[in-house]
Amino acid sequence: MSEFGLEDLPIRDDLRGRTPYGAPQLDVPVALNTNENPYPPSPRLAEALARAVADVAVGLNRYPDRDAVRLRSALADYLGHGLDVRGVWAANGSNEILQQVLQVFGGQGRTAMGFEPSYSMHPVITGVTGTRWVAERRGDDFSIDPAEARAAVLRHRPDVVFLTSPNNPTGTALPLETIEAVAEVAPGVVVVDEAYAEFRREGTPSALSLLPRHPRLIVSRTMSKAFAMAGARLGYLAAHPAVVDAIQLVRLPYHLSAVTQAVAVTALDFADELLGTVKQLREERDALVAWLRERGFSVADSDANFVLFGVFPDRGEVWRRMLDQGVLIREVGPSGWLRVSVGTPEENAAFRAALSNVTGH
Amino acid sequence: MSEFGLEDLPIRDDLRGRTPYGAPQLDVPVALNTNENPYPPSPRLAEALARAVADVAVGLNRYPDRDAVRLRSALADYLGHGLDVRGVWAANGSNEILQQVLQVFGGQGRTAMGFEPSYSMHPVITGVTGTRWVAERRGDDFSIDPAEARAAVLRHRPDVVFLTSPNNPTGTALPLETIEAVAEVAPGVVVVDEAYAEFRREGTPSALSLLPRHPRLIVSRTMSKAFAMAGARLGYLAAHPAVVDAIQLVRLPYHLSAVTQAVAVTALDFADELLGTVKQLREERDALVAWLRERGFSVADSDANFVLFGVFPDRGEVWRRMLDQGVLIREVGPSGWLRVSVGTPEENAAFRAALSNVTGH
Repeated sequence: MSEFGLEDLPIRDDLRGRTPYGAPQLDVPVALNTNENPYPPSPRLAEALARAVADVAVGLNRYPDRDAVRLRSALADYLGHGLDVRGVWAANGSNEILQQVLQVFGGQGRTAMGFEPSYSMHPVITGVTGTRWVAERRGDDFSIDPAEARAAVLRHRPDVVFLTSPNNPTGTALPLETIEAVAEVAPGVVVVDEAYAEFRREGTPSALSLLPRHPRLIVSRTMSKAFAMAGARLGYLAAHPAVVDAIQLVRLPYHLSAVTQAVAVTALDFADELLGTVKQLREERDALVAWLRERGFSVADSDANFVLFGVFPDRGEVWRRMLDQGVLIREVGPSGWLRVSVGTPEENAAFRAALSNVTGH
Repeated sequence: MSEFGLEDLPIRDDLRGRTPYGAPQLDVPVALNTNENPYPPSPRLAEALARAVADVAVGLNRYPDRDAVRLRSALADYLGHGLDVRGVWAANGSNEILQQVLQVFGGQGRTAMGFEPSYSMHPVITGVTGTRWVAERRGDDFSIDPAEARAAVLRHRPDVVFLTSPNNPTGTALPLETIEAVAEVAPGVVVVDEAYAEFRREGTPSALSLLPRHPRLIVSRTMSKAFAMAGARLGYLAAHPAVVDAIQLVRLPYHLSAVTQAVAVTALDFADELLGTVKQLREERDALVAWLRERGFSVADSDANFVLFGVFPDRGEVWRRMLDQGVLIREVGPSGWLRVSVGTPEENAAFRAALSNVTGH
């Protein structure tokens, strides 16, 4: 039995040679690699979460509300834009949301399309659901030209288009004109992945405002980042109610535990407190962008809680030497660039000090 | 926008006309329709769960352990059979476990096979993952003949075989000889769905004992039933470590929340208390089987926490009239049969009274 290994198993051919997705899980003093919110829930919120779980615990022998009505209503209230429970769906992280979208609108013989560099889970989940992946490139400044995007959609006729805004790992949000240019010609659904929406700069609109005009537009969100709830795994989407109906055909029944539903509802009750950290993080982010530019680095405009900077002839070497100094950042995105999550003022100071040491800037 | 509906969306052709899986969620005095454990967690366990969640709450801004090492170790300890963390994997309910298995071993151009009547989510998840479904019939007593099963596997060459033991909705466990007969000739993986394993009758072995001899055998389990944790959504599998490695290629990163991991670990700490209800439920089950047989009903042997009984010329009519009396059972499985979950002594008494009223037996 000890000789038997992965290569002896009859896994799907297209999975052979792949490696699991995921950043290294290293124990370091300053972890700025996975775009987590550095501010933990307050003791008051932690206590409220414990109380909420105590309440549902006595009924855990029963299945949860399969339709998560209370949670979806609370998410709709949070989003505004005239949304209600029928236009919101929730799952275990926005990855599961995207998987459900691909399961119902993608699959064998169908195509999903993205504009790279972007979130690398989009092609991974596309592949896992048996959907073909087509990638167009973003411009040198990581923008998407509306006319070129429209032409690309007309050329590939994708069943699912991903637009990440703010984009990960580059950080910049898309103008609504670009999203509309794609939505107007896309034959299938258009998913605007707004995982980092709450961090966008002043005056940058959300694609939520386009939903009334585009019934095949889907906006995905998460509580991992702005709500500082990465550990709770709660992603959601807003769309036309028919899209939510369609997802019912592929969702696993009772996919969202009673505990997850209670935790997320409680966190939404504390939205003011949790989103209070967003302002701080945006200010720190803008300061970090300015600091990097002052030192001569190239920096992508950031509407997110991370900053992409470069350009390094050997980014792997910079990444390793930063790690030697106890600062873990992410080697991701276009060649030569590195991504750093915005942390606490102390963590950001440690990042700046380490980067100055490593690069001499 | 009000005119736009599901039929206007470009969903996958094979999903058109389907309806979402799930039992009716009705509010009735006696719910015996989804095989829940009727005994809620004790106040002591509810308090321990709240404490465990309070502990993880202060770190919820961080992603959970992607590999759920502590939970998988605890599950391995519970299962015994020489298993360790490398041979155990966990997910949000055993449905997600089965979906991950089909994503890695099934998919386009591949086939999954089952012996019906059986758990109706097997073909559903098979379809959602783009895998072809092939069904063989069980015998009139819902058994599987080992020689016929072997011949069917050699004929269809399925990539995934499902063997449900104890079977749902019929209730009877498979002899190990049947499982081995299939495992010996199956070209792909064999999944023994043991969701109800803890309820099996004295002397009925688990397929876990076959794992050392069959590296392509997978045993799936859940904490929903015996552990009375349907609301917590925790399914798991035991298999050769290479199978667990293979699942990493398709699992969504951070699929299992820190809260779910903490809740499940805590429930495993209370295994003695939780599994204490299993003995009671088995006794009630055996009494219910005997009572039904005394009254002349046909009853499948049950190794589970439910009983399949019949045969009714119009089972829908019996189901509705039971519901009128406040007792919700399940219209599922072979024509003419009905399934009732084993509840508390009071719930079972209500079921017996209602059935006598409705049928005159």
